[in-house]
Amino acid sequence: MPRVLLITAYDGTGYNGSAYQPEAVTIEGVLKKAIKGLTGHEPELIGASRTDAGVHACGNLFVFDTQASIPPDKFSYALNSMLPDDIRIMKSMEVDPSFHPRHCNSVKTYQYRIWNDDVMLPVKRYYAWHCSFNLDIEKMQQAAEYLVGTHDFTSFCNTATQTPDHVRTVISVNVFREGKEVVIEVKGKGFLYNMVRIMAGTLAMIGRSKGSPEDIQAMIEARNRSAAGPTAPANGLCLMKYEFPDKEVVI
Amino acid sequence: MPRVLLITAYDGTGYNGSAYQPEAVTIEGVLKKAIKGLTGHEPELIGASRTDAGVHACGNLFVFDTQASIPPDKFSYALNSMLPDDIRIMKSMEVDPSFHPRHCNSVKTYQYRIWNDDVMLPVKRYYAWHCSFNLDIEKMQQAAEYLVGTHDFTSFCNTATQTPDHVRTVISVNVFREGKEVVIEVKGKGFLYNMVRIMAGTLAMIGRSKGSPEDIQAMIEARNRSAAGPTAPANGLCLMKYEFPDKEVVI
Repeated sequence: MPRVLLITAYDGTGYNGSAYQPEAVTIEGVLKKAIKGLTGHEPELIGASRTDAGVHACGNLFVFDTQASIPPDKFSYALNSMLPDDIRIMKSMEVDPSFHPRHCNSVKTYQYRIWNDDVMLPVKRYYAWHCSFNLDIEKMQQAAEYLVGTHDFTSFCNTATQTPDHVRTVISVNVFREGKEVVIEVKGKGFLYNMVRIMAGTLAMIGRSKGSPEDIQAMIEARNRSAAGPTAPANGLCLMKYEFPDKEVVI
Repeated sequence: MPRVLLITAYDGTGYNGSAYQPEAVTIEGVLKKAIKGLTGHEPELIGASRTDAGVHACGNLFVFDTQASIPPDKFSYALNSMLPDDIRIMKSMEVDPSFHPRHCNSVKTYQYRIWNDDVMLPVKRYYAWHCSFNLDIEKMQQAAEYLVGTHDFTSFCNTATQTPDHVRTVISVNVFREGKEVVIEVKGKGFLYNMVRIMAGTLAMIGRSKGSPEDIQAMIEARNRSAAGPTAPANGLCLMKYEFPDKEVVI
């Protein structure tokens, strides 16, 4: 049975996160309903990343198997005509039936955006965290370097996680300004529950001169959530894209 | 009586434009109510630019006279605590009682944003016009040059206008890409009803190879709305800022 990959973008403002919940409005729930409306069958939908309520995506992935006669690359058009405008299929394609978006070597890119000015700009209010204190970008970048590499990220993980293994590999963290926004771009092979938001909250804390860049080292070594900084709010976070270095999928 | 200037930003999505209408929700109506709540008196509010329903602003101006004891530079904080989060006072200040934001020499900057890709990105849906056809930026910039200068812009004005004089001065028009967005940045001393949206619609038409840059010349000379291209949708437009070259106000 052909397996279809959906490259999915959404505005997470109106959703209780991406993962299916029977009693709540979720990205996966709305996608499932649209696919059922199109193919007549409720699909088993496999999502790549779970995103929290209010978190956005420009390229989260979902796969499902279908015997529908719709060509895989046309699912995007067909689904977009049925989905609300805050969820779009940017592209759809056939993938190998063995492809599983969580069980393969992938690189994820996240951006965390901070509106760094006295007053929040209304058009950014759902897409950036408002920090009115001055942020020292150089200090944040220095701090970010300590996060790069393969570490036990227990200190940067929500304690409610059910994942026992907290070792993850962060490939890069870049902090830069775009006008009045501070952007923290994080690339990694995998992330723990709230990991990017805790990284952003901790970097912002250091950027406003509460602590020094070297403190990150001790925070990681503590393996204790209370050692790191606060969890930054959901609305600043966007899952930008997936890449597959082993070329299982070219997207 | 002291005159207070409010530098105002808003997300125009939920409003019937900026100008007061007794039976509709407008930016001016909401501002008036908040000022009355704060000072006890309904102010006579003078707006700088009228923006259409769905058009955004990062720096539209309003002035009002008040005898309230609140220091003019503190009005921003006081009003922001009462306003909905899609309207913010970015800054407030005292200005000369003779200052009128429409009766003085000013330069306005607008940006018109086009999301130029097959599928609209959900997080941009309220802030950019979706054009899926390929846009030739160089042709758009060449066309834009014909709009610069002092011209009779009747062809670029909604026929419902009540302004008899259609001569306006456009200082610059720059067309550039920002990722998958095409940005048209227009600076001018004054604009007619829908002028920037008609400029954007016309430049996009030429960018998709319907006509050539030189056609703009004939469109201007025709002094007839039907000679120019379509009016681009409101959501792509944002009034970015006001500047006062004669330094009546430094904002």
